Amino acid sequence: RFREDTGEAIGILKTGAFNAITDVPRVKVGQVTLFSSSDIRTGVTAILPHDGNIFQQKVPAAVFVANGFGKMAGISQVNELGNLETPVVLTNTLSVAAGMEGLITYTLAQPGNEKVRSVNAVVGETNDGFLNDITGRHVRPEHVLQALKDAKTGKVDEGNVGAGTGTICFGWKGGIGTSSRVLPSKSGKYTVGVLVQTNFGGVLEIKGIPVGKNLGKYFLSDQLNDPADGSCLIVVATDAPLSHRNLERLAKRAWSALARVGGIASNGSGEYVLAFSTNEKVRIPHNQPGPTQTLEEVHNDAMSPLFLGAIEATEEAILNSLWAARTVSGKNGVSEELPREQVKKMLKR
Amino acid sequence: RFREDTGEAIGILKTGAFNAITDVPRVKVGQVTLFSSSDIRTGVTAILPHDGNIFQQKVPAAVFVANGFGKMAGISQVNELGNLETPVVLTNTLSVAAGMEGLITYTLAQPGNEKVRSVNAVVGETNDGFLNDITGRHVRPEHVLQALKDAKTGKVDEGNVGAGTGTICFGWKGGIGTSSRVLPSKSGKYTVGVLVQTNFGGVLEIKGIPVGKNLGKYFLSDQLNDPADGSCLIVVATDAPLSHRNLERLAKRAWSALARVGGIASNGSGEYVLAFSTNEKVRIPHNQPGPTQTLEEVHNDAMSPLFLGAIEATEEAILNSLWAARTVSGKNGVSEELPREQVKKMLKR
Amino acid sequence: RFREDTGEAIGILKTGAFNAITDVPRVKVGQVTLFSSSDIRTGVTAILPHDGNIFQQKVPAAVFVANGFGKMAGISQVNELGNLETPVVLTNTLSVAAGMEGLITYTLAQPGNEKVRSVNAVVGETNDGFLNDITGRHVRPEHVLQALKDAKTGKVDEGNVGAGTGTICFGWKGGIGTSSRVLPSKSGKYTVGVLVQTNFGGVLEIKGIPVGKNLGKYFLSDQLNDPADGSCLIVVATDAPLSHRNLERLAKRAWSALARVGGIASNGSGEYVLAFSTNEKVRIPHNQPGPTQTLEEVHNDAMSPLFLGAIEATEEAILNSLWAARTVSGKNGVSEELPREQVKKMLKR
Amino acid sequence: RFREDTGEAIGILKTGAFNAITDVPRVKVGQVTLFSSSDIRTGVTAILPHDGNIFQQKVPAAVFVANGFGKMAGISQVNELGNLETPVVLTNTLSVAAGMEGLITYTLAQPGNEKVRSVNAVVGETNDGFLNDITGRHVRPEHVLQALKDAKTGKVDEGNVGAGTGTICFGWKGGIGTSSRVLPSKSGKYTVGVLVQTNFGGVLEIKGIPVGKNLGKYFLSDQLNDPADGSCLIVVATDAPLSHRNLERLAKRAWSALARVGGIASNGSGEYVLAFSTNEKVRIPHNQPGPTQTLEEVHNDAMSPLFLGAIEATEEAILNSLWAARTVSGKNGVSEELPREQVKKMLKR
Repeated sequence: RFREDTGEAIGILKTGAFNAITDVPRVKVGQVTLFSSSDIRTGVTAILPHDGNIFQQKVPAAVFVANGFGKMAGISQVNELGNLETPVVLTNTLSVAAGMEGLITYTLAQPGNEKVRSVNAVVGETNDGFLNDITGRHVRPEHVLQALKDAKTGKVDEGNVGAGTGTICFGWKGGIGTSSRVLPSKSGKYTVGVLVQTNFGGVLEIKGIPVGKNLGKYFLSDQLNDPADGSCLIVVATDAPLSHRNLERLAKRAWSALARVGGIASNGSGEYVLAFSTNEKVRIPHNQPGPTQTLEEVHNDAMSPLFLGAIEATEEAILNSLWAARTVSGKNGVSEELPREQVKKMLKR
Repeated sequence: RFREDTGEAIGILKTGAFNAITDVPRVKVGQVTLFSSSDIRTGVTAILPHDGNIFQQKVPAAVFVANGFGKMAGISQVNELGNLETPVVLTNTLSVAAGMEGLITYTLAQPGNEKVRSVNAVVGETNDGFLNDITGRHVRPEHVLQALKDAKTGKVDEGNVGAGTGTICFGWKGGIGTSSRVLPSKSGKYTVGVLVQTNFGGVLEIKGIPVGKNLGKYFLSDQLNDPADGSCLIVVATDAPLSHRNLERLAKRAWSALARVGGIASNGSGEYVLAFSTNEKVRIPHNQPGPTQTLEEVHNDAMSPLFLGAIEATEEAILNSLWAARTVSGKNGVSEELPREQVKKMLKR
Repeated sequence: RFREDTGEAIGILKTGAFNAITDVPRVKVGQVTLFSSSDIRTGVTAILPHDGNIFQQKVPAAVFVANGFGKMAGISQVNELGNLETPVVLTNTLSVAAGMEGLITYTLAQPGNEKVRSVNAVVGETNDGFLNDITGRHVRPEHVLQALKDAKTGKVDEGNVGAGTGTICFGWKGGIGTSSRVLPSKSGKYTVGVLVQTNFGGVLEIKGIPVGKNLGKYFLSDQLNDPADGSCLIVVATDAPLSHRNLERLAKRAWSALARVGGIASNGSGEYVLAFSTNEKVRIPHNQPGPTQTLEEVHNDAMSPLFLGAIEATEEAILNSLWAARTVSGKNGVSEELPREQVKKMLKR
Repeated sequence: RFREDTGEAIGILKTGAFNAITDVPRVKVGQVTLFSSSDIRTGVTAILPHDGNIFQQKVPAAVFVANGFGKMAGISQVNELGNLETPVVLTNTLSVAAGMEGLITYTLAQPGNEKVRSVNAVVGETNDGFLNDITGRHVRPEHVLQALKDAKTGKVDEGNVGAGTGTICFGWKGGIGTSSRVLPSKSGKYTVGVLVQTNFGGVLEIKGIPVGKNLGKYFLSDQLNDPADGSCLIVVATDAPLSHRNLERLAKRAWSALARVGGIASNGSGEYVLAFSTNEKVRIPHNQPGPTQTLEEVHNDAMSPLFLGAIEATEEAILNSLWAARTVSGKNGVSEELPREQVKKMLKR
């Protein structure tokens, strides 16, 4: 991983034990990788906010749409009702429907949901159509169910895995990455965990080193004068008890980390951040007696350390996605991994 | 239809020839109705902005989310890029994914789209789960393809048809409705057409007559103390050349018409308005040479007559949906049609 | 007032004791009317959410921008932080700055605010420039201070008073209006109060009676083919403990009531709704120990009765503004009052 | 300036002739600095999009609210109508009203505006209350008029000048900064210019060098454990012919540059970006014959180079603001300038 391999930290805050989104207690990640024949390079990454019945025990959530050129499903309900009632599924652009079908099937089948007839499936995507036979729509609902079933806490696989199997980032092989930060005690000791699916472009910089420029591969360069497109999906989890409104603010900050590595949110780069809180003090039961609910929430003035944590973790998650990814050949050619040894030399300054 | 049967006009503007969304030149509507066994009561309604390749010749569009409790797909891209690149499909809540699959298959198969690997499918829904076996997910992608194939200009079927087959409105059988308005010459002679899928509640009023109250069926009444939920999808078409921004404004006004018939946008009532312009002067080619495009757009100051037209047409479309709908029994019971003769007596004041 | 004079109710819910925004406990209204020489026809209307130090004890609030053609100040902070830290001031378009100065002076002078150096003044406006010498900017900060000082609970003056002194609505003299609704016990017995400053146009309808059309005065008619412009400011208060998010939803519904009387939100009609909650269980202290706060909030599922209340109260507040207003001559001519006796005859159907 | 003093470039694009917002043809900047007695440390910075009558010849514009904790005036109208009808004024938090008064007076007095009675004054602010006697409200409308009168093309003063006289950035003296980028010919050769008023915090980094950490002054450090608050106002000008929608997208990218220097958009940091286009092909006349207008606009696919330009210019503008600022003592103490020589050593890696 970036930190271990380079000896370089990102930012000033400490990481959690796994330096992963799963450092947020109860969060689980499950992934299914579809890598077969010469052109199936795709998959599913599922994030579960807790291991109960999520529909019956919804979590506060918000989506920030940084660049809406994308097909993420379930956005408007998350932002209207302020909550998430399914796991979050990431996959490829043309498999959002399969992701929804999987989540609906999963939710309807959960004990306690027998009477449910409305499910807001949340599915994000990026376009892996360079390496993957995307129009073949190889992701099926059963892959989603498998990812949900396999989900676990602890270590998270990164790089060419799940929804990151076929993605490309800054012209190099991208994929899934994750990282986390733990706030100091005086700031509440909360954890912020991030998972990214990186498929975007721009002018790669790592800790200010113009890696893209040094390697001659960047937006508007001769070698990479493509539209820098792609996308980036970011999922932010925290155990801080947050309202929808402050989750939306947190999501916005997470996005700004893309600029730190040279992202430009190019026209075709769909960039979405979904943030949720796992804290039980803000959990939202599906059925509630009486008109009111008691909550305990972080107030505005205490949000800034969380903002910093989300930015740092997002930046490191992106770097981890690049660090873990390996060269892949696929439908339309080869996507090479970042030349890590070269980059490490650049970082020794 | 409401106007013919009651002799009552809605508003001050004239209707188009069909008093339908298809009065906007080139707009086509196709519907597939699934009505079988005792509990399949659902379907698909598709609206096509023109009869060319919509992906290659996108139309300016905007979505106004009035109440985001709903699963409409494709929203963020429409609002980010300001355009629509597929037909609009309406169906039931748990069949949005099927709608997307259908639209993706349709788009990929169109001549000229061979290289396409990203499609923003726009699918709206309301929940027909009282009459329909919604968890059975009976709508399939092929039904969407059929609706698209069957689409035609001219007269539009209303009531228990297509996506309106199983919907309920103000406690009575709802469904699909449509209407249109033509502006006076001094306002540009533009046409505004509206199609609605009515599945929402509140306190029904028709031209100010408290129909719901008179019939003892309204939100918070003893007889109908359910949560007034449901939803309403509204599609607004116009041949006025409008920017995304002014289409969003137009969409917002269309929504306000729900209040005119007693809609309250209850918590569970997902209410979305999609508006698009068919005018060729604002058409957006998928590939464009050079960085700029020349357009001709209605400016802000000339928008107000269109706003009035959208409000009037939406109100009348809702009434038409109620007028055309007929009593249906389904999965969980019977939904009765509005007692039109009684209402007509109330209207004679 | 409309209800007393016509014997007609609006909607199905009961009003509060004063049928005014002041039925929400602790809410106070203060108004200063500037009516002098031949062309000063303007003023200030101030609404206070409680009688403590509002900056130190902020209230949850949200602004819904229905049509942003207007100059309302303080919007972004209300929506970002989810609260209101000053009273709300309404005045004319070119006096928003004076309104801000007044609110800042008021806030800085309150005991306990000695260290304050940032104040988010919330000021709404409509354009009274037909009757009023608006470019003379006759409203001064001291008028704001006077309105705040004079604010009281109980009966609220309506019509040509305060910020409504010079406004015009549907071609007739408009002004300030107010109304309230009390929810049934099973819905929490909460009160929703509304105050409006009416200065907008369209095609006036009262309980479905086409008053504007009958009187030959409506948008696009020969007699009134002006752009139907003007504006409408709506303030919604409630003692229901609501989050920012649900206050925004409430505000949105209040706006839809304009369509019920024939409003079209014409291009030039700035339409803004500010909603706040006075409930102490959601009060937001300026300084809070520790990172979290405990709250008790109405959950999503219990919102619908409040939505209905806000719509009914807004409709009746608009009618009250028209009912109380009287013919005024001013800078550019005469604005006539609604011919109430004629309208009452129309209402007897 | 940063580039000249350090020999370091920011990004890959070329700057304009002045490396300033005034590289966009016709854009003018005027500043008034109030620096007197021991505690008046404030001022006004005005940006004019062209030298004609801006009210009569409006320019397309958009505001992106990154963190709405701020008092920026005129936002909703800019975003609703998609245009700017006054110059943009920056000042301190409690002088927004004075800024509005100045802009209204300026606009009403322009030849050709004799009939104007509605003006949307656009005024941004940051809080200079540490150095400045902000509650004294020393900025007056006449200072705004002076700044507008003095406005000129060419070189722009930076640092402790105009609205930057009393601002603080990352714990060091901040102020006004500016920069620009010119796109390659193949991307349209457009210019993007940025002006910033820096008053925000976080963990300062310059080209990836952890300057804040190295100097022991950063958010959450022992030395600087204040809330990292303040604000940042960003104005983006371009001669590319852009729609409101694409200007809003451009504004969003400009904001992301704050993260590149370690900004975290802390809770109390109001961050707003206003972007406008000076291109005559998208100019919006106040009165237009007929309902439509012909425009020529950059289409979505050609936006990405502009996005890159806005990010680079914003980053460099921030650095320029720090580079030009000098140590100042004021009302509540001293704000020291960035130790540039130390930083230059850090940059030699």
